[in-house]
Amino acid sequence: RINGERLWASLMELAKIGATPKGGVKRLALTDLDKQGRDLVVGWAKEAGMSIAIDQIGNVFMRREGRNPSLPPIMTGSHIDTQPTGGKFDGNYGVLAGLEVVRTLNDEGIATEAPVEVAFWTNEEGSRFVPVMMGSGVFCGAFSLETAYAAKDTEGKSVKDELARIGYMGEQVPGQHPIGAYFETHIEQGPVLEDADKVIGVVPAVMGLSWYDCVVTGMEAHAGPTPMGLRKDAMQVSTYIMQEVVKIANRYPPYGRGTVGMVQVFPNSRNVIPGEVKFSIDLRNVNDELLNTMHEEMLAFIDKTRSDSGLVISIERVSYYPPCPFHPDCVGAVREATAKLGYSTMDVVSGAGHDAIYAARLAPAGMIFVPCKDGISHNEIEDAKSDHLEAGCNVLLHAMLERAKI
Amino acid sequence: RINGERLWASLMELAKIGATPKGGVKRLALTDLDKQGRDLVVGWAKEAGMSIAIDQIGNVFMRREGRNPSLPPIMTGSHIDTQPTGGKFDGNYGVLAGLEVVRTLNDEGIATEAPVEVAFWTNEEGSRFVPVMMGSGVFCGAFSLETAYAAKDTEGKSVKDELARIGYMGEQVPGQHPIGAYFETHIEQGPVLEDADKVIGVVPAVMGLSWYDCVVTGMEAHAGPTPMGLRKDAMQVSTYIMQEVVKIANRYPPYGRGTVGMVQVFPNSRNVIPGEVKFSIDLRNVNDELLNTMHEEMLAFIDKTRSDSGLVISIERVSYYPPCPFHPDCVGAVREATAKLGYSTMDVVSGAGHDAIYAARLAPAGMIFVPCKDGISHNEIEDAKSDHLEAGCNVLLHAMLERAKI
Ligand SMILES: NC(=O)NCCC(=O)O
Ligand SMILES: NC(=O)NCCC(=O)O
Repeated sequence: RINGERLWASLMELAKIGATPKGGVKRLALTDLDKQGRDLVVGWAKEAGMSIAIDQIGNVFMRREGRNPSLPPIMTGSHIDTQPTGGKFDGNYGVLAGLEVVRTLNDEGIATEAPVEVAFWTNEEGSRFVPVMMGSGVFCGAFSLETAYAAKDTEGKSVKDELARIGYMGEQVPGQHPIGAYFETHIEQGPVLEDADKVIGVVPAVMGLSWYDCVVTGMEAHAGPTPMGLRKDAMQVSTYIMQEVVKIANRYPPYGRGTVGMVQVFPNSRNVIPGEVKFSIDLRNVNDELLNTMHEEMLAFIDKTRSDSGLVISIERVSYYPPCPFHPDCVGAVREATAKLGYSTMDVVSGAGHDAIYAARLAPAGMIFVPCKDGISHNEIEDAKSDHLEAGCNVLLHAMLERAKI
Repeated sequence: RINGERLWASLMELAKIGATPKGGVKRLALTDLDKQGRDLVVGWAKEAGMSIAIDQIGNVFMRREGRNPSLPPIMTGSHIDTQPTGGKFDGNYGVLAGLEVVRTLNDEGIATEAPVEVAFWTNEEGSRFVPVMMGSGVFCGAFSLETAYAAKDTEGKSVKDELARIGYMGEQVPGQHPIGAYFETHIEQGPVLEDADKVIGVVPAVMGLSWYDCVVTGMEAHAGPTPMGLRKDAMQVSTYIMQEVVKIANRYPPYGRGTVGMVQVFPNSRNVIPGEVKFSIDLRNVNDELLNTMHEEMLAFIDKTRSDSGLVISIERVSYYPPCPFHPDCVGAVREATAKLGYSTMDVVSGAGHDAIYAARLAPAGMIFVPCKDGISHNEIEDAKSDHLEAGCNVLLHAMLERAKI
């Protein structure tokens, strides 16, 4: 069993770097604070006797050697960058749970056949630099190192320059680092476990997601003198599409998701009929066929709305991640460890993307969820119970040992 | 008949002050540019032999004496401040049409029994300082001079300080200046005249308007992991209210108007379910009973939506102007002048508020509309035809002469 108090203490120590007045953390990727966080974690790994490898996109691999160093390592990891108004647990928990596993193995004097590694991936959040899950994405070849290097923040600073500046541009070619199996522990970021009063979520898969930008163009005009019949009101037409996004998701339960999160209205003045409305659409499902059906139904509705309204409507897909089923071996290892330890459990399909979906392209992978308060994350009030974090870490320990062999 | 070319030349000359690259004008109230515009117009009035009076809120009254100086003046006017992306005609036309009437009377050597005055009112647009129609509002006692003086722009500069700075804080107590009758020429700011191919709009009334701020508060949550059934999506709930605003307006034709022009979504991120949406509602009608019915129906729908959705919904009325029927004498004078001059004409209820609605509280008032291109105003592409502006000015001349007596 791992040491829950030590895990909690490390989480609180790391959370001091970039701590916000409201109890959250702001530690954006490749900032000075990210460097401080990285240095702290790397220092702890060295104290635990681990060796460090860094690749060219700044992913860090911290290794506890196995009896057979030629075996690919059993890896766990996550990220330590945060949202601008982020919490203490998102990502950080996955990394420090891995470190706690190693500390426990050390305490108990347990040697493993395969090496055990703890990774943290660069810029998972995507808040400062897009795309999200950058480090793991480059690692698995989803996009190139050059693409990632060229990404700039709002001040025009590039990933390449910032990586070099904070001293985390390593030598390893991304993807050259072998992985035997990959586990990631994470707070659920949703309300399902809490709602069902379960401690451990076994994650069979991550939903696929499609992101769109929709732009409805009407005609800006004065709200008073323009009769209702002569209007081309971009906001009104948009509301019908926005409602359909939710209706489509509800037609494909239980994993259909449909969200309009971002809306921009032009000129956004109370006595001007909106001439243009730009909004985002986020569709998700765990089954690619269903996700595609949702996609087709949305395009059909937009075609119908375009001809009914006479307004110009453009729709562009800006991101797509296919659903990612995890490997039966890893899901099984998590399930068995949970059963052995006697925690209450249920399967929870991950609605959010994680570094694990990219790792899964290269090696068997699986995830372990623990509840977070009110299902809230990406928020300074993000919270989780020490008991739950300890339980997730114990499951991680036993799942990794099952794979790494004692 | 007035001199259409001279009127056009003056409009183009004034439009140079604050001219924008896209052909519009940005001359916000009480800025240096407003001072330049005021100085130019006052200079022209002096050249035309007029005397100048300024009141404590910066309203300027330019007077051509009558045979009987003790009669209250027959007044026309409008404003010369503009929107941040405004046009050359909104307001400016009404002031320069008045000046052109005086120039024509001078050219023809016509004396009037009553004095003739041309006014421009301070800060009609309300873009820099709220409330809108500030100068005429203080003048008619709709709100106090102190309230107006205290209004601040986004930089914290007050109306009082800015008025003093540009040298337009006069001596007259607002409202002490007598008015015998008030006329205002204005571009229609709507598509009705152009649509019907008419030159002169006789304005029997201005619609009443109610402005509201509506805030829907749900629960911000991650778009992926949060099942549809556990959401409190503030945007979705808002769309139903937004649609009802238009449905209510359509139930009370032909003058019912319903517009949602301003929408702000929090946190406005593509993978976060909106936790709060704030939007404006603008309801108008020409009949106060109908406007009140629209108001009641909207409140009832919001009550229903609140109980159906379980979300917190607040609604606050932030402005209210009752419908303003103009005086039969002034409307009649405009109608007769139009008939005498042989212009094509129709009645057009003003959907937009104007300084004339405040002047109408103190004296008989009326308005004259001319078409503007595509019904567009509050836009740099605002445009109007020289012929139409000339026609409107001729109607003004004859309507004023009818009241001022030759
Ligand atoms: N974990 C997480 O928030 N990933 C971002 C991408 C997503 O919206 O799923
Ligand atoms: N003329 C004008 O735009 N007035 C502003 C108030 C309104 O929206 O009617």
